[in-house]
Amino acid sequence: MITVLSGGTGTPKLLQGIKTIVPEEELCIIVNTLENNYFSGVYVSADIDTVLYTMSDMINEKTWYGRKDDSFYTHDELKKLGFHETLRLGDKDRALKIQKTMLLQEYSLTDAVKIQKERLGIKSSILPMSNEESKVSIITDNGEMSFHEFLVTNKSEPNVKDVVYNNVTPTDEVIECLKTSEQIIIGPSNPITSINPIISMNGIRKILRKKYVTCISPIIGKDAVSGPASKFMEAKGFDVTPVGVAKIYEEFLDHYIINSSDNKYKSSIEEFIPKVSLDNIILKKMDDRINLARKIIFG
Amino acid sequence: MITVLSGGTGTPKLLQGIKTIVPEEELCIIVNTLENNYFSGVYVSADIDTVLYTMSDMINEKTWYGRKDDSFYTHDELKKLGFHETLRLGDKDRALKIQKTMLLQEYSLTDAVKIQKERLGIKSSILPMSNEESKVSIITDNGEMSFHEFLVTNKSEPNVKDVVYNNVTPTDEVIECLKTSEQIIIGPSNPITSINPIISMNGIRKILRKKYVTCISPIIGKDAVSGPASKFMEAKGFDVTPVGVAKIYEEFLDHYIINSSDNKYKSSIEEFIPKVSLDNIILKKMDDRINLARKIIFG
Repeated sequence: MITVLSGGTGTPKLLQGIKTIVPEEELCIIVNTLENNYFSGVYVSADIDTVLYTMSDMINEKTWYGRKDDSFYTHDELKKLGFHETLRLGDKDRALKIQKTMLLQEYSLTDAVKIQKERLGIKSSILPMSNEESKVSIITDNGEMSFHEFLVTNKSEPNVKDVVYNNVTPTDEVIECLKTSEQIIIGPSNPITSINPIISMNGIRKILRKKYVTCISPIIGKDAVSGPASKFMEAKGFDVTPVGVAKIYEEFLDHYIINSSDNKYKSSIEEFIPKVSLDNIILKKMDDRINLARKIIFG
Repeated sequence: MITVLSGGTGTPKLLQGIKTIVPEEELCIIVNTLENNYFSGVYVSADIDTVLYTMSDMINEKTWYGRKDDSFYTHDELKKLGFHETLRLGDKDRALKIQKTMLLQEYSLTDAVKIQKERLGIKSSILPMSNEESKVSIITDNGEMSFHEFLVTNKSEPNVKDVVYNNVTPTDEVIECLKTSEQIIIGPSNPITSINPIISMNGIRKILRKKYVTCISPIIGKDAVSGPASKFMEAKGFDVTPVGVAKIYEEFLDHYIINSSDNKYKSSIEEFIPKVSLDNIILKKMDDRINLARKIIFG
């Protein structure tokens, strides 16, 4: 079993490559649930849904959320009625969210996602990190706000002073999946709000220390490849460089892949990480995604 | 002020006629809420929404629920995902229901409907009969079921033994509207599950006795013009004829309009109702709706 820890944008791109190499049944994806919440009356687990759509080849690759070829009749009508949706949900995407909301009246999030991924024909395991609800606050110069208020409503613009969230309990499925894995891959996702919520759960670091862990840097030079990772890392006191990311995973990281342009950081990272590789981690094209996946799996 | 008591199919057709005659601001519609419930995670007040769409000229006249020219992307996708929606909600119609659901987190049903009807440009008052939730059971040969289970899932086919529901409290707005009305019109709606829930509320009959009340029969010959009225009337021990309907409203009814083909019932009804008229009450075309509205308003 190969397990990937995933957020919502960088890692799904890499998953497209990994799924061409690893047999479906041998792949497990543990997904961040930190930002899960109700919007417009439906339960939105954005990162999980992005992974569901990525694994079923339905993802909208322009936005990396929602489905390709979706329509927006309900969203547009809501606007006409004077109700502004925080998230622009497509009509088909809304169906997945409605179904999940209804399933959650009877099932855990883990089981609800299992039902949905099977319905979408996905054979890999897709595991929410926890069945418990997280509470997350972004503390900014403009005050405290929810994750989506910061990311969507305020377009990640305010200066971030801190990111605060509670710890949740990992599911039995997550623990079992990690324990039976030969390799664990930390995708190029936001270390603070996507990966750290997973590895901060009780018992996870202990398992990771015993496993071969590969990480792809979400930072190139001094900038995040996508999203607000830089602001969050800075607020948490980490250098916004590939070195800063390595520091976060230092305790258990075996193989660290940074972008070819970041050769200057290699030797200083090698002081505390056993193996450091240079590669193209920008993943613009499908070929890049497959090539990187090969390097990760075959070394 | 002219007030119409309305269910979801027959009366809205008549409303199309009435709204061409009565000035918008002088018209108040009190709507049944007996069958309101949550479906697919949204609050569905079917009769209210039909009145909203009728008054804003958006009603789907083929089905008398939902909007004309709607699409069904979310509904169809839910089916593909293995979630069968009891109600086939259109994408734009779903928007109205999502907005109402969200408004109900802050407002009463009365205020939520007021916000929506104003947004739709409707100047007439549209008042839910109550802000309280009703519980309704249809007792059939196949057991007890909810209203929509009977009507939609079982297509009104089972034999009905009884219809049971709790009494709810009328809103202040409903009482005020009835008290200030010169005429009250009972539309051709189901007497048992649309009109009776309204007139059974505390204090309503007392007001109706003091007002000029006109009713259009929902029964022609021995059949309901639409819907399961016959089965419900039979279960409650009423004759399924225009006479049976008149018996239900006997206490306060001043003017009763039955279909021209029902002349044979006229004299027996005249024994207990002051004025009985014959007219075309089938309302297939817009002209029929306007003509009947004229007879109702001008006598």
